[in-house]
Amino acid sequence: MTTIKKFEKPIGMRDTFPVTYEKNETLRNIGRKFLRARGYEFVNTPTLEYYDTVGKASAIYDASLFKLVDSQGNTLVLRPDMTTPITRVATSKLLKEKIPLRLAYFANVFRAQQLEGGRPAEFDQMGIEIIGDKSVYADAEVIITAIQLVQNYSIESFKVTIGHAGILNCILNDYTENENQANKLRSLLIERNYVGFEEAVISFDLPKTKSDALLQFINEATNIETIEQIEKYVSKNDALLYMRQLAEIIQQADLTKYVSFDFTLSSHMNYYTGMLFELFADGSGFPLGNGGRYDGLLHHFGSDVGATGFGIRVDRLLEILPTQEPREKTVALIFEDALFTKALELANSLRNEGKLVTLQSKNGLINEEAFSLVFDEVLYVSQEDQLQ
Amino acid sequence: MTTIKKFEKPIGMRDTFPVTYEKNETLRNIGRKFLRARGYEFVNTPTLEYYDTVGKASAIYDASLFKLVDSQGNTLVLRPDMTTPITRVATSKLLKEKIPLRLAYFANVFRAQQLEGGRPAEFDQMGIEIIGDKSVYADAEVIITAIQLVQNYSIESFKVTIGHAGILNCILNDYTENENQANKLRSLLIERNYVGFEEAVISFDLPKTKSDALLQFINEATNIETIEQIEKYVSKNDALLYMRQLAEIIQQADLTKYVSFDFTLSSHMNYYTGMLFELFADGSGFPLGNGGRYDGLLHHFGSDVGATGFGIRVDRLLEILPTQEPREKTVALIFEDALFTKALELANSLRNEGKLVTLQSKNGLINEEAFSLVFDEVLYVSQEDQLQ
Repeated sequence: MTTIKKFEKPIGMRDTFPVTYEKNETLRNIGRKFLRARGYEFVNTPTLEYYDTVGKASAIYDASLFKLVDSQGNTLVLRPDMTTPITRVATSKLLKEKIPLRLAYFANVFRAQQLEGGRPAEFDQMGIEIIGDKSVYADAEVIITAIQLVQNYSIESFKVTIGHAGILNCILNDYTENENQANKLRSLLIERNYVGFEEAVISFDLPKTKSDALLQFINEATNIETIEQIEKYVSKNDALLYMRQLAEIIQQADLTKYVSFDFTLSSHMNYYTGMLFELFADGSGFPLGNGGRYDGLLHHFGSDVGATGFGIRVDRLLEILPTQEPREKTVALIFEDALFTKALELANSLRNEGKLVTLQSKNGLINEEAFSLVFDEVLYVSQEDQLQ
Repeated sequence: MTTIKKFEKPIGMRDTFPVTYEKNETLRNIGRKFLRARGYEFVNTPTLEYYDTVGKASAIYDASLFKLVDSQGNTLVLRPDMTTPITRVATSKLLKEKIPLRLAYFANVFRAQQLEGGRPAEFDQMGIEIIGDKSVYADAEVIITAIQLVQNYSIESFKVTIGHAGILNCILNDYTENENQANKLRSLLIERNYVGFEEAVISFDLPKTKSDALLQFINEATNIETIEQIEKYVSKNDALLYMRQLAEIIQQADLTKYVSFDFTLSSHMNYYTGMLFELFADGSGFPLGNGGRYDGLLHHFGSDVGATGFGIRVDRLLEILPTQEPREKTVALIFEDALFTKALELANSLRNEGKLVTLQSKNGLINEEAFSLVFDEVLYVSQEDQLQ
């Protein structure tokens, strides 16, 4: 246990100051308007969930969970994502009212950090879930909505990379000798360790046709333009057909220029069995958002209607957002005590003009000069004015 | 440890469904606009704080804190209020930029519940803090802002009750024989146990003048119209003068009809040494909001500039809010796969008219009839239309 200084915050925890707060609120309101117009309904879930229900089922590594024990002795977690709690709400209640559900969220999620390394342990996510539609149009809608949401923030330099967990599994199984080898390669891909992948393939001592295929795959599969380019590796025709349809719908929505395919894309969660994707802003090493089909998570909660969705990291979106509109004008109205009523009237009329008006007693000020500096305009309501 | 069912949530935790979510967002946006127009700047602080910095300093009983231990072995708390974290931020950073600060927040706070008794363990609060102004105008501004904020939500049936911790302490000390007696009476007042107060006074076996004064005080002091009515009990003239000024400023703002005084009003935190108040909506047994001067908390964080503020329970405000404006029209646009492009165009044009348009593949629907029922309007984009 370290000594905690009076003003310290836990590792990875941040304060949000006024300028960032307003930028975040603007982002939130724009996103909410955009998603509601597309038929998404916003929901919220508690910050705390049971470890046994939501914690274990979430796609987040156990070591990243904030855990606590309640007065009954049950382990709770601070929600590490919103997809799992929303799946809980949908399967326990909302799916009885409407199928498919189109749900949206804007919420903070938590990832425990072991050391202060500049990464946030609490951050906002905005996202959508379509629950109860297994058609390729639901997956296409998720990708199209992700692209158009980002465009709606006047961001044009970004790329969506789409993969397919089923196709990757098929390739890994077909070109290795056993499940251990396939799992080893999959975990290297989750870490994006392509060098490690090549080394592992060589170390497996596979038949030359198989190792050649895997080495060629890893060199070709990370950035391809059309589904045809991956076909030679894949025996699973239904998934390929699905991906061709997906690419065609994106073409029909005129968004092909934002999209490429990466069939090495992988997730450590076995819930993701279909399409999955990542959205990268140009020049950023971290994904702005990601999504995919998670029918397996629905199964975990006892439903087989399927689900697909995406989430965007609001903190990363804030960083690349173009500068905001000029802010409202701030006015300080400094009054002498005897003239409070007059000052109040003036403040109200300025506020009605859309100005942000601080009404401040002159006697309450410790340093009038310093205080006056932070406003766009300073007005005085004083006895002298009164007498004029 | 109890057995947790698949869909269960921790005690006191709630899901927020779309209708309530939108009501809450409207409330939030109205409040934000109102407070910003008055010069308040919104800030946010982390959900988790160190127990040693914010947890211990907060006005919330220790048993109500959600505690956890981080990877370093430090105890963390889920923030039980916003006043203490904002005081941390102000004293460590923001006061260097501006004095007084006018800060606002809209944030969830946490209170552990021992048993499921219908009380929320997580709820939203909206509030303001004026940090660095010891004048009576700062306290008046807090009360006036609280009243006008509630009025701004078209709520007219409410009452503000104002007390003063210093005046109460003075009375309790003057009419008892020792500190133990004064503390005993204060803790009965915190619980609003007036019968217990009378019984305790009698049990103390005080000189008749003292016990008579205390018994008369408890009968008179809970709902008085003017400060003069309390003067006979009080030896502390500066605090009385202060309260007379406060009443006069409220009069000048034409808000006297909402206000009464209750000099039994008390808090278990010794940080509250000056004015304190509660806001009750008519017919509600729980305060909608409360506030007061907390110079002592600033001292705790090493500053002597003083602070005053209030917070409102958003969940209770939501309950008494008049019904909302009619919501936007919802439209389902059900398309046949071949006509996706046409459907997309139609959806975009309807969205531009302000409608909330769900674009849904007919093939993705499990039960078209049930799905169609939940929308205001259902349109079909089908081959038949195409051929007409």
